[in-house]
Amino acid sequence: MTTLYLDDFAPGQRFDLGTFTLTADEIVAFARAYDPQPFHLSEEGGRASPYGGLIASGWHTCAVTMRRLADGLLARTPGMGSPGLDELRWLGPVRPGITYAVDLEVTQVRPSSSRPDRGAITTRIEVKAPDGAVVMRWTSAIIIGRRPAATD
Amino acid sequence: MTTLYLDDFAPGQRFDLGTFTLTADEIVAFARAYDPQPFHLSEEGGRASPYGGLIASGWHTCAVTMRRLADGLLARTPGMGSPGLDELRWLGPVRPGITYAVDLEVTQVRPSSSRPDRGAITTRIEVKAPDGAVVMRWTSAIIIGRRPAATD
Repeated sequence: MTTLYLDDFAPGQRFDLGTFTLTADEIVAFARAYDPQPFHLSEEGGRASPYGGLIASGWHTCAVTMRRLADGLLARTPGMGSPGLDELRWLGPVRPGITYAVDLEVTQVRPSSSRPDRGAITTRIEVKAPDGAVVMRWTSAIIIGRRPAATD
Repeated sequence: MTTLYLDDFAPGQRFDLGTFTLTADEIVAFARAYDPQPFHLSEEGGRASPYGGLIASGWHTCAVTMRRLADGLLARTPGMGSPGLDELRWLGPVRPGITYAVDLEVTQVRPSSSRPDRGAITTRIEVKAPDGAVVMRWTSAIIIGRRPAATD
């Protein structure tokens, strides 16, 4: 697979990062470890909540979306991590047995002014339900190495 | 333990949410599941990166911070989830064997204009290393039920 350096990115590029589907058992196991709120721990707890049924922790949705980003894009780039996110939005519930699609759009590309071997891309990631509804969106910067020749 | 309703929160309140410490094995296990980048997967991968050693996935730090928030505050409130975060910042590495402290400050309290049984608090969460350096910070809204009498 071709390595993608910072120099290969441009605003407007889109990447299909594939899909994920969570089981009720996976949702409950993640919640027991990290986010033990009633609507993440059981179907009964979900029914008694505003969500009407078991839903995944928003952090679980983030984690599986990160896995899609790692496998679908970062594995092909000299990535150096991320300083963080702006506007992480949990817009709709993520429920067991539903398949969600993950897409990324590059919105900005900035070579570093202080470090000639790297730069940052700004990305908008969206997670969509089968009906097209966006259930999660975030904007994040990712630090990526430049093509070696570009620093000669 | 006293239940804390929306009506019990006020800007400026601070909550000590305790601490967490991650082992190298926990960091690697989370990374294998959700964030398989070299600096999260092994000490060797970390040494070859700008981080100089194994560091936890930022999402792992979020997940264990969420656990502290759930145990230290949400377990005492009629919480109804969160619409998301603004400004999630990974400011420094989270390394194995180091104990990090989690603190929360309430910055805003807003009763819902459309739903008299609930409202939102805006919170700033900080995760600090033993030397006081903030290694992660986020701002988030949390939906919380009002004291029942307040809606009569």
